[in-house]
Amino acid sequence: MVDLLFAPEVREMLQDNDDAGMRTFCENLHPATVAAALAGEFEVEEVWRFLQHTNIKNQAVIFEYFPIDWQVKMVEGTGRQAMAKLIEQMSPDDRAGLMRRLMPRVQEGLLRLVDEANRRDIAQLVNYQASTAGALMTTDYAWLPDNISAAEALDRLRLQAPDRETIYYIFILDDDRKLKGVVTLRDLILAPRHALIRDLMEEDVVHVHVGDDRRKVAQAMARFDLLAMPVVDEQGRLVGIVTHDDALDAVVEEATEDVHRLGAVGPLAENYLDANIITIWRKRVVWLAVLFIAEMFTFTAMAWFDDALKAVTVLALFVPLCISTGGNSGSQAATLIIRAMALGQVTVQDWFRVLRHELLLGILLGLALGAIGLVRAYFLTPDHVLANTDGSHTDPLRLALVIGQAVTAICIWGTLIGSMLPLVFRRLGVDPGFASSPFVATFVDVTGIVIYFLIAKAWLL
Amino acid sequence: MVDLLFAPEVREMLQDNDDAGMRTFCENLHPATVAAALAGEFEVEEVWRFLQHTNIKNQAVIFEYFPIDWQVKMVEGTGRQAMAKLIEQMSPDDRAGLMRRLMPRVQEGLLRLVDEANRRDIAQLVNYQASTAGALMTTDYAWLPDNISAAEALDRLRLQAPDRETIYYIFILDDDRKLKGVVTLRDLILAPRHALIRDLMEEDVVHVHVGDDRRKVAQAMARFDLLAMPVVDEQGRLVGIVTHDDALDAVVEEATEDVHRLGAVGPLAENYLDANIITIWRKRVVWLAVLFIAEMFTFTAMAWFDDALKAVTVLALFVPLCISTGGNSGSQAATLIIRAMALGQVTVQDWFRVLRHELLLGILLGLALGAIGLVRAYFLTPDHVLANTDGSHTDPLRLALVIGQAVTAICIWGTLIGSMLPLVFRRLGVDPGFASSPFVATFVDVTGIVIYFLIAKAWLL
Repeated sequence: MVDLLFAPEVREMLQDNDDAGMRTFCENLHPATVAAALAGEFEVEEVWRFLQHTNIKNQAVIFEYFPIDWQVKMVEGTGRQAMAKLIEQMSPDDRAGLMRRLMPRVQEGLLRLVDEANRRDIAQLVNYQASTAGALMTTDYAWLPDNISAAEALDRLRLQAPDRETIYYIFILDDDRKLKGVVTLRDLILAPRHALIRDLMEEDVVHVHVGDDRRKVAQAMARFDLLAMPVVDEQGRLVGIVTHDDALDAVVEEATEDVHRLGAVGPLAENYLDANIITIWRKRVVWLAVLFIAEMFTFTAMAWFDDALKAVTVLALFVPLCISTGGNSGSQAATLIIRAMALGQVTVQDWFRVLRHELLLGILLGLALGAIGLVRAYFLTPDHVLANTDGSHTDPLRLALVIGQAVTAICIWGTLIGSMLPLVFRRLGVDPGFASSPFVATFVDVTGIVIYFLIAKAWLL
Repeated sequence: MVDLLFAPEVREMLQDNDDAGMRTFCENLHPATVAAALAGEFEVEEVWRFLQHTNIKNQAVIFEYFPIDWQVKMVEGTGRQAMAKLIEQMSPDDRAGLMRRLMPRVQEGLLRLVDEANRRDIAQLVNYQASTAGALMTTDYAWLPDNISAAEALDRLRLQAPDRETIYYIFILDDDRKLKGVVTLRDLILAPRHALIRDLMEEDVVHVHVGDDRRKVAQAMARFDLLAMPVVDEQGRLVGIVTHDDALDAVVEEATEDVHRLGAVGPLAENYLDANIITIWRKRVVWLAVLFIAEMFTFTAMAWFDDALKAVTVLALFVPLCISTGGNSGSQAATLIIRAMALGQVTVQDWFRVLRHELLLGILLGLALGAIGLVRAYFLTPDHVLANTDGSHTDPLRLALVIGQAVTAICIWGTLIGSMLPLVFRRLGVDPGFASSPFVATFVDVTGIVIYFLIAKAWLL
């Protein structure tokens, strides 16, 4: 998100070397606003010069709000030593996200300059696979033992707090760092001073495992209305938390991936206008070429019925109409099922209910469209197109019956394919979202041609 | 979300009238889990009987976790008096959401039984339009004046807190309830006891207006990493807050609507498997019929070129391949632009940059596909389909050139239409998402036929 509102002001301050102005700007505005004002419009070198006017801690906070590709550019545009200092100040999840994007050589060079504790923290987080809870979490959480009083807990939090990403949930750990319970800051404030944490804490803590999919994490956070989700390892030890803001970002990113897949585009993480044109081309051409090659079977299918086409030339004119019906009804069904699966409303086990549902819907939809098609074909087909090259004339009533039946049959077929393909994909371990509209349409185009000509041959030849 | 894990246990407790068991179940499990265990499997009457075993406050908390259509059913299945008591205990945003879904007669009947203060609160919230900040917010926020000390603030919060949805952000209001600042509970805990709120508070408060779109609210909350977003009226007075959990739900709902629109389905809020089949049919048949009728113009377009089809019969065989290219490339472009617009990355003002971008991409994609098409047509077209009914033979090289050019041209055309339609829709005040894959495909099918036959006529007739 680039904020052009402040750009002239920033430019002026840079030109005038207005030290006081730059410091006030960095320190009085929200870091997200500062980052947005600096990203996009200015050179990396100018951005760094601007940021020098605030302390390293605030620099780190602002830096975290830059888009990730900007962060990468900024790493390349500054000295290793300065960058290492900044990395020590960044929050664990954000710097791990940045490290994952750097070239191994740069990553290693930086890691060597970071102090021991931070280096270990980074090394641990960087290894979690993208789109797992581990990759989303921060190691910066508030924790306490269970044998202290509420008053003592507040005192300890005052010591921990300045460095913690959130202190609103405090996790209660035993000596092995195993998760025993959770206390909210609100409970702590409301509790009598001498109440023991072990009596205040909620013991049944909703948690996820470090390898769980981030989609699952976000769904659980939404279901239980959590501010932060604890993440545990195989031994039940707390290794991090996922905070509400990162869950929200994850949901938005997942939705973007889902939508891109539905449109048969390789998921594109970058901002559309900023992304490299070759990157976008690559994300698109592969899918487009695959679909194009698959669609070539429409030619093969039509070639089988070459005789029919030559004998009854009007048949060719209805091909796009008939096959597109299957593509559209299939897109609808696929979209509904894919989204319901993403929301956890439908699983592979529900296949029979989905099939029954969609068969009924396909019939109801098919009959409606078939009726429109029949009327259209009977009343609105001009006479000259009914004339065949051998001098014969196609019977308009029979033609209308063919169109009506073909549209109904292809609509039912498209609906069934569209609803079943996502389930089949999931069963095979493939993301159901690949059953995109273009994919379903291509599949149904080829098979739809066969259905259409078989019906046509039965009535007209 | 229905949880079948606990269903046998719940059924047993109901059959045995196990009062202690039901109380423990309601009070020891997370309310989301209790609601999920009771929804779906059981009769409304059984659910109410089960819930009687916990106090009214906890009943309200559990009730809020039922899916909204279940809540409506439950209102109908209990006495007005009991329901009014429950409504008084519910959080303002959830009960306003429920009220919006009830029939006016039921709504009025209930409102009459609710006490004065709650009635006014409900009446105010119910009136905000769906999908605005007003409809998403709760009136249950913590607030303080600016002239007290941190210690006094904590004391006052202890009194307010039990009823507040969140006390992690405390809003500072003047005598007219105008928003002057915000203090986090963390700042309050860390501050010296005698520090004045006015010195602690952040004055530059990010906020939204009551009529702002909920998508904008969620985007701002994600951008500034907020736990709660204050909502103000025209006079700058605080009227409510949107909490992080509701923002997350809103993002998921918006994504579902976006995805459904992309698949040309009317947005469906209900769970797919639970939704009424007639409801789903209506959401689908309208779009499908509109697309079908629009697609009829493919027939009209083909009829214009009836002579060409009769003279060179092989042309018909390549129609599905050529036009689907436009549909697929158009879907990709439309999907990318629609999503980028939803994320705020692209606005109508960027149309020229998008056009330049997509023209270049269309050419690069079109050339790749055109080359494949040319090779396919030249080498793999069987001889018998080249024979025309008048005894002549179509030249395979000329045919290959036609296919290559048509595929390239239609791919460029599809890319341009797909990228520009969402921008045109937004400009006209229509949701860009309506430029769905099926919509773009239909549009490009008709125009693609014209492009294809014009090129064919130039080379082959």
